[in-house]
Amino acid sequence: MIFKQMTIIGVGLIGGSLGLAAKKKKAVKTVVGYGRRRGALHKAVSLNAIDRYFLTLPKAVADADLVVLATPVGTFKKLCQALAPHLKEGTVVTDVGSVKGQLVGELEALMPEKVNFVGGHPIAGREKSGVLAATGTLFQGCQTILTPTAQSKQDVLRQVAALWEAVGAKVSEIDPFDHDRILGMVSHLPHFVAYALMETLSHPQVAKLDPVRYSAGGLRDFTRIAESSPEMWRDIFLYNKTSMLEAIDFYQETIEKIKKEISAENGPGLLELFERAKVIREKAPSK
Amino acid sequence: MIFKQMTIIGVGLIGGSLGLAAKKKKAVKTVVGYGRRRGALHKAVSLNAIDRYFLTLPKAVADADLVVLATPVGTFKKLCQALAPHLKEGTVVTDVGSVKGQLVGELEALMPEKVNFVGGHPIAGREKSGVLAATGTLFQGCQTILTPTAQSKQDVLRQVAALWEAVGAKVSEIDPFDHDRILGMVSHLPHFVAYALMETLSHPQVAKLDPVRYSAGGLRDFTRIAESSPEMWRDIFLYNKTSMLEAIDFYQETIEKIKKEISAENGPGLLELFERAKVIREKAPSK
Repeated sequence: MIFKQMTIIGVGLIGGSLGLAAKKKKAVKTVVGYGRRRGALHKAVSLNAIDRYFLTLPKAVADADLVVLATPVGTFKKLCQALAPHLKEGTVVTDVGSVKGQLVGELEALMPEKVNFVGGHPIAGREKSGVLAATGTLFQGCQTILTPTAQSKQDVLRQVAALWEAVGAKVSEIDPFDHDRILGMVSHLPHFVAYALMETLSHPQVAKLDPVRYSAGGLRDFTRIAESSPEMWRDIFLYNKTSMLEAIDFYQETIEKIKKEISAENGPGLLELFERAKVIREKAPSK
Repeated sequence: MIFKQMTIIGVGLIGGSLGLAAKKKKAVKTVVGYGRRRGALHKAVSLNAIDRYFLTLPKAVADADLVVLATPVGTFKKLCQALAPHLKEGTVVTDVGSVKGQLVGELEALMPEKVNFVGGHPIAGREKSGVLAATGTLFQGCQTILTPTAQSKQDVLRQVAALWEAVGAKVSEIDPFDHDRILGMVSHLPHFVAYALMETLSHPQVAKLDPVRYSAGGLRDFTRIAESSPEMWRDIFLYNKTSMLEAIDFYQETIEKIKKEISAENGPGLLELFERAKVIREKAPSK
């Protein structure tokens, strides 16, 4: 047992899956859920993702040894302000958000003395959201990034890492700002790209030809990418603004470069481009 | 039986699947294959995709009632120049290429008198290529576009449509240039977008953070898109240059628009964008 009581703030796909897996692996003794909708929390209990729940934050966190923030990134600051005064000494607070950077320092600063914050990000997800999509194997074989700062304590980091390892994840430690650059490239940029494509196809001048009727597998893969929780992605786009705009700039440069190859009808150049894509394909983890 | 002898030029994924399906549905009596590699053609016979094959073009097409061009688009003109003198009267020539536009008129002009050309494009495909990936159900439920011109004969169009319907496709007739605009948007642009993303991730300044190691499902869907035959895609990019550059311009405008929403931290605007993506998703055929 790594933590006695784990309180999950936001029992959706990620929070619910963590509860399920941590209970199954006996990494925690009790899982408490906090949320705003009683129906969803009730469902979470019946799915065995949590043992019990509270609709009031102070009660939910009062006895927690670990608090996990699993709501959209944009809610973290307010939540931490609200829950901090109710934590007992020695509590560890972590999160599962897709953005780190300066947010980590800001949350750290909101913690009372003798409470430690460790930023975390399990790189797992599905197109579906909500606790009904939760599964005890979601983190099996996935990468989880912890983002320590100068203030982080080694023993606390080790405890949080042990929880993720218990549910099957491979844990790395990365600087919070590097985390945002990396995720900006391999996750946030792809989602941006997919949403931009969908938006292009919605343009009235394009839509009048009803092109989507004649689409096939290629487009379907894109629509799948553009299918996750809108609130979550809004917050990611806003909170990782700097790295995203940097990644988009790179992407725009690449578009101009390939456009030139097409304009110049550079067949060998295009073949080389397709070959380089293979390298990335072979590097991408299969899970 | 719609055609007595069908000769397939290029027995790969699409050509092989057409042979398999047309034989199974008895839409043709005999299927002859033409290609350059004896090994692949031999394999195609053993898979029952063709009945026999020739490595010389004149022999392959001499007795054909229907000739189907199923090689990359860039080879069509040379092939038609080479095979035209060897066709018998009344032969129908069609293709399965992803680009139409002015190429249709050019191929039409290469045909001898009493030979009819009809442009065709089954919107089907898999990431895999080659006859080993061929399947008799590839065209089941897929859209096939025929691209008639002012010179096209109604009875010839009907015959070609009947062949595609026999193998399970839904047939539409679309102007060759509209075809290129439509496919430019829903197929060629998505592939461009995916290759541009892969290329961005290959950039040394990005690659030094080894970001792909931390990628998940989103990126995997992209790598799948960027997995089809390089030669085929080179030819599509080059032959559909005009419509592609037009589609890319639209896409670049959209990128600028979304970038502005991110820069301005326009949360409600981003949520609206994600909502509009849903409309496209619901319109895209499930097969």
